[in-house]
Amino acid sequence: MVTIYFIQGNRYNDSMKKKPLRVVFVGFGHVARKMASMLTAEREKFPGLSGLELEPLAIFTGKHGALVDPSGIDLGKALAQYEENGAFPKASMTVLQALETLDYDVLVELSALDIARRGEPAIAHVRAALERGRHAVTANKGPAAFAYRELKNLAEKNKVYFLFESAVMDGTPIFGLPRILPGCRVAGFSGILNTTTNFVISRLEQGESMDSAVKTAQRLGFAEADPSLDLEGWDAAAKTAILANVFMDAGMTPLQVERRGIVGLTATEAGRARDRGRCLKLICRGWLDNGKVRAGVSLEEVPWGEFFAAVGGKGSCLRIETDMLGPIMINQEKPTLYDTASGVLFDLLTAAAQG
Amino acid sequence: MVTIYFIQGNRYNDSMKKKPLRVVFVGFGHVARKMASMLTAEREKFPGLSGLELEPLAIFTGKHGALVDPSGIDLGKALAQYEENGAFPKASMTVLQALETLDYDVLVELSALDIARRGEPAIAHVRAALERGRHAVTANKGPAAFAYRELKNLAEKNKVYFLFESAVMDGTPIFGLPRILPGCRVAGFSGILNTTTNFVISRLEQGESMDSAVKTAQRLGFAEADPSLDLEGWDAAAKTAILANVFMDAGMTPLQVERRGIVGLTATEAGRARDRGRCLKLICRGWLDNGKVRAGVSLEEVPWGEFFAAVGGKGSCLRIETDMLGPIMINQEKPTLYDTASGVLFDLLTAAAQG
Repeated sequence: MVTIYFIQGNRYNDSMKKKPLRVVFVGFGHVARKMASMLTAEREKFPGLSGLELEPLAIFTGKHGALVDPSGIDLGKALAQYEENGAFPKASMTVLQALETLDYDVLVELSALDIARRGEPAIAHVRAALERGRHAVTANKGPAAFAYRELKNLAEKNKVYFLFESAVMDGTPIFGLPRILPGCRVAGFSGILNTTTNFVISRLEQGESMDSAVKTAQRLGFAEADPSLDLEGWDAAAKTAILANVFMDAGMTPLQVERRGIVGLTATEAGRARDRGRCLKLICRGWLDNGKVRAGVSLEEVPWGEFFAAVGGKGSCLRIETDMLGPIMINQEKPTLYDTASGVLFDLLTAAAQG
Repeated sequence: MVTIYFIQGNRYNDSMKKKPLRVVFVGFGHVARKMASMLTAEREKFPGLSGLELEPLAIFTGKHGALVDPSGIDLGKALAQYEENGAFPKASMTVLQALETLDYDVLVELSALDIARRGEPAIAHVRAALERGRHAVTANKGPAAFAYRELKNLAEKNKVYFLFESAVMDGTPIFGLPRILPGCRVAGFSGILNTTTNFVISRLEQGESMDSAVKTAQRLGFAEADPSLDLEGWDAAAKTAILANVFMDAGMTPLQVERRGIVGLTATEAGRARDRGRCLKLICRGWLDNGKVRAGVSLEEVPWGEFFAAVGGKGSCLRIETDMLGPIMINQEKPTLYDTASGVLFDLLTAAAQG
């Protein structure tokens, strides 16, 4: 394979520090481990990552212990150790103690969204890092969905990054778009952002019952053991809030998103739409209503042949309307764990470029 | 409407110099005049452009004279003068003389692609600007299609920008994508990038003859008076060469793109595809063949329901495959002159941020 250059304005490879980026991992699930693998065992497959070295000072898992070593942990060895034992030793300090005392460059927050706790404890973790002038990179939707303005202002005040590229559409560079649309103001957006509901609806259209469709989604890895966050529209609402906050300065939380999930939807209803040449899609929207930003998640009928109708499988899409140019749409077709891990890596490369 | 902030990493509004950017326009057609209008009469509609002021030192048209004033031209007045008279006075110097002697910051090259002349004279214009350490912004496909490596190297040597965002998909920020996909290598791309052929094919599918479809395309503003550049695939090949050069370091020209246009295509053939549940699309591709970059433009059958099949009207789309994440696709649905003008404005904002 030829070497591919990214020339126009890509500062990363030029200015990236060669010394390792010292990180604290909070969460060491599938995404974190895929990312660790891309930087160790799989490194030769990704020559564009050659300038990025991570040196964890601590790795916290949710329920399987932690590794802490202020002098630095070998990422490859830690990954192998975790995959062999399924756990780390018992933690010698709490996450907040680590974030408040260790000398790291970047917090890598990869815990899962907790809607009931309004995005905590991830928000507290991100705040602790930013307050100490350390970058915060997170795939958790909580911080940007529930505390965007506060954390953004804190990051700006302390001249560090608060980044969350993989929180919406995995690695598809949604939150990078403003950088390449300079001067544009966003007038609204719409998208299909939750794959579980998209998959379940497609099964209902084929006549399957809700109960059976959810079980199929779980078996195929489309849905969590507890699918309520998806089916009730909370995951979509969290993503919608983030987009409204970042693109439209909405200052809202998922609780302010007008939300309808797909609970109670039946195969009969889905089939009726299909018979009219349409399909049902759970659409996330942000729009301006007399100068005020509103946002919603709702079930809509989309005619076959339109772009949104073509979003299937694990795909997702986002359409953005701006004042300067007609709507543009970005689609992700077949994301895997690599996509989510890549979103985190993009953020780490951005942080590494600043140092 | 609320004020929309582009926060994450948008350096433009912060660092942009307030003094006007001195420019030389080469070409003052629809795109240039729409851009001029967005910065003058229509300025209040685009608050994100408030930091950008252009001060032309010269405006050259193709066949309708020129304005030259080394002390600066009022853009709004020049636009009004041109729209009233349909012409400027006779030029007092040539374009090259202006580019070699005036004290401008940015060349704005908006002449049309000339395939027969291998991208000249736009290439000579861009070279003259870059050699003097001035930025070059162009919507003309010639420079990046026929002389990318030379001009890119020259720009890097002289620490200025060679930018051409609107050369492919108007203002859709294609050439900005590498900046927000750091670390990625492009393995290939495919897209629908020529609207004339896309429109003509859709008319053939409805049973219209080629001759009549082309006339309809001309009447509706989809096709030029001389449609051969589009129908023979040259416009698509030029765009394909640019993408292969920028994304895959191909160092190729449109002459090396394996090219098939739609000359000779009949309504019968298009109808036959339709009857099979498919539609014909002129697809631009770049790919790796044993480490070597190849590129082509060819007529392909796309099943209904796929994204590419949904690209109609004046829409276009580009799918990019990278090593780090699954294919992502970016679509432009309903471009107008604003879109093309916006692409040029994005480049000017980039140049203005550097000064």
